[in-house]
Amino acid sequence: MINLLYLPELREMLAEADTKGLHEFCTALHPARTAEFMEGLTATEAWQVLQHADPETREEIFSYFDPDKQLEILETQDRTEMAGLVAELASDDRVDLLHEADEGLVAELLPLLSPEDRRDILRLKSYPEGVAGAVMTSDIARLDENLLVREALNELARQAEELETVYYVYVVDDTDHLRGVVSTRQLLSAISKPETRLRDLMETDLATVNVMDDQEEVARKVAKFDLLAIPVVDDEFRLLGIITHDDVIDVMREEATEDAHLSAGVQPLDESYLKTPIVTLSRKRGMWLTILFVTALFTAFALRHYEEDTQKVAWLVIFIPLVISAGGNSGTQAATLVITALTRGDVKLNDWVRVVRRELAMGLLLGGFLASLGFVAAMLLHRELISAAVVASTLVLVVLAGTIVGSMLPMVFRRLGLDPALMSNPFVTGIIDIMGIVIYMNVAIALLTLTGKMPATPVP
Amino acid sequence: MINLLYLPELREMLAEADTKGLHEFCTALHPARTAEFMEGLTATEAWQVLQHADPETREEIFSYFDPDKQLEILETQDRTEMAGLVAELASDDRVDLLHEADEGLVAELLPLLSPEDRRDILRLKSYPEGVAGAVMTSDIARLDENLLVREALNELARQAEELETVYYVYVVDDTDHLRGVVSTRQLLSAISKPETRLRDLMETDLATVNVMDDQEEVARKVAKFDLLAIPVVDDEFRLLGIITHDDVIDVMREEATEDAHLSAGVQPLDESYLKTPIVTLSRKRGMWLTILFVTALFTAFALRHYEEDTQKVAWLVIFIPLVISAGGNSGTQAATLVITALTRGDVKLNDWVRVVRRELAMGLLLGGFLASLGFVAAMLLHRELISAAVVASTLVLVVLAGTIVGSMLPMVFRRLGLDPALMSNPFVTGIIDIMGIVIYMNVAIALLTLTGKMPATPVP
Repeated sequence: MINLLYLPELREMLAEADTKGLHEFCTALHPARTAEFMEGLTATEAWQVLQHADPETREEIFSYFDPDKQLEILETQDRTEMAGLVAELASDDRVDLLHEADEGLVAELLPLLSPEDRRDILRLKSYPEGVAGAVMTSDIARLDENLLVREALNELARQAEELETVYYVYVVDDTDHLRGVVSTRQLLSAISKPETRLRDLMETDLATVNVMDDQEEVARKVAKFDLLAIPVVDDEFRLLGIITHDDVIDVMREEATEDAHLSAGVQPLDESYLKTPIVTLSRKRGMWLTILFVTALFTAFALRHYEEDTQKVAWLVIFIPLVISAGGNSGTQAATLVITALTRGDVKLNDWVRVVRRELAMGLLLGGFLASLGFVAAMLLHRELISAAVVASTLVLVVLAGTIVGSMLPMVFRRLGLDPALMSNPFVTGIIDIMGIVIYMNVAIALLTLTGKMPATPVP
Repeated sequence: MINLLYLPELREMLAEADTKGLHEFCTALHPARTAEFMEGLTATEAWQVLQHADPETREEIFSYFDPDKQLEILETQDRTEMAGLVAELASDDRVDLLHEADEGLVAELLPLLSPEDRRDILRLKSYPEGVAGAVMTSDIARLDENLLVREALNELARQAEELETVYYVYVVDDTDHLRGVVSTRQLLSAISKPETRLRDLMETDLATVNVMDDQEEVARKVAKFDLLAIPVVDDEFRLLGIITHDDVIDVMREEATEDAHLSAGVQPLDESYLKTPIVTLSRKRGMWLTILFVTALFTAFALRHYEEDTQKVAWLVIFIPLVISAGGNSGTQAATLVITALTRGDVKLNDWVRVVRRELAMGLLLGGFLASLGFVAAMLLHRELISAAVVASTLVLVVLAGTIVGSMLPMVFRRLGLDPALMSNPFVTGIIDIMGIVIYMNVAIALLTLTGKMPATPVP
């Protein structure tokens, strides 16, 4: 939904070249809100409006535009102006933007930037997606360990204008190795002792991430230590950048959506649902749907194997979907509980014995309960004790198979170094469907033979 | 996994009353790390160790303990000391702790607190779980709009020691109505103009949340505006508290896990998987498993209805799980995509026509593709053109039913004011299973009758 409230006024102001009104519009609101009101404008109109903001506000409003709108402006507007804009953008945001842009355009823009900006962009662009280096910003408040509190405050006030965050000051030695951190809160509290050296004020027990660490690991650490920003270092502990709380929140939102999609057997989308082209969407869904379909083919093979039995004992067919769905559901529950616990770090791989013990108990409890329901249901549906006994015994075993297999498969995947979320719910269900059919038919044949109710030869 | 590395040393230091060593232990590391090393201690030992930290560090380390450990200390240690600890804790953390504690204990502790702390606790405790009021802290840097930058900086340095966050300063009028916000970054940059009034420096276009807003709404706004903290106001716009970035991250982690659990048909757990008692776990899983089982019973009723047909045409049975699982999987995919898009705000209710159009296209594309696979598979399995035709036609229709029903059910739930995540994957699967059986049997009967392959009377 595009916000159309201000569009007519904005267009009128542009037509009348109402400099004062447009400047007022650009500065009166929170940049995120200003960006929202500009959604309906074309790329050229939007860029004209932004001419009436000071460079810093312009960059801020621009950074709240939709990625598509950003790209459109970058592609259609004057190259030199765009180079100026790119120079102003936060170092992590501009890399994201240039990642999306056409190679040719990037090649035109880079020479228009300062050598320093150019190097920074090329370096950040080189990190693979999903690692700390690809999310970090290189705009950091870094101060020398020998500075006094008084000097640090002045230096900070000078840097504050340019930086994305000044809530922590990173203290480095003269070869840029990270030595410690001082929060602005600590600096403010130390105003009364202006001659203290940063070295004596800083915390040295720091949470850091390596530049090649996975972004999920970054989110976990920031959440654990309640940090506003976490420093990113290389293998020699040199300070390369920081990842700030807002980027961590974005990473978490992204990961949560990706996990949800994977768990439903959808390859994660790069764009929102409505913006993903139909062809891409069908590929990302079709791939998994095909894998799951091929898995499900085994149910058909299994049932063909038992075709004679289902012909001899007609009522067996009635309960097939019921018993296999009970197994699939209990498996999905167990798998999801274990996957979320693994992701949050609540369960470790060497907890597997405890998990098996719990799921054994759960399988017996839940299976036993469903078995009693199933017994009653089978009596109502078929009015024969033998069918009720078969359904009830199968339910206990199938639910138990579901809890055990569902809980162990994600742990096996993690052990193999794969993402446990790949052990998606439909996949667990597919595997347990096959097990369910085999269990059901074997229980039925055993009980029917035992009670002498199995016809010796098939109906012709 | 409990960290046992430091335990013997800690116990030795306690036995020897090694004040210097224990003080060093309490202050050398990040409080989160110190708390981790103390995990293996008993409540009494832990509290003894904490005696060697200054009150502020003690409170910080305590706040990183496990909720269970916190509660155990609160319940077992000296009441007066505990009242002192409660007075030190951040206002949102202590309310969480007292929520868990025994009513009798709370009644003993409250009279030992200052009237101000007592009022604050009782007020925060009164908000229902899951709303902004229940997550906010009332420790805020609030300054009068008439203060000068110079005065504000001094006042802030004074308050900084006590507050959870000083990254924003909230500017209020003399009846506590929120007028604006100044970031410490702006204050620092304004050091050179110490005679500016806050009123002239502050931003007045503020993102706020109402005290009764849902915590998901809070997380959405903080993510949208990239905030470190969001102010919480009452209906008259009086400033009641703030919610800080770390609490937002916690809320997001919690919500992501809850959504994952709900989508697998597990009532969200209050504690981690391994800590949830078996009885609670079986209740939270059994409830949904029972609902799903009862839904699945309809598949048995449907199949009993078609019992005669499956007896006449034996091969029909073979493909039942295959076709219904294809529908269930395509439904799960569509439901999850729509649920995550609704949660993120990418899809609104009035986008439903666009969603239906997309899912219609997806259903035909994916269904058509699976149908061609199914055709080949059926020919291999049964070697009769008619069975291949039945399976292929059914697959198109079932997958189409899956995409349409799967995408619309969550929107219907949202429209009814319910959580779309309730439309869990197993539930969608259950509904589509039943539709799948009905579609399959009707397609089969129609095609078999049309081609004259349906035996007129059942096998005796």
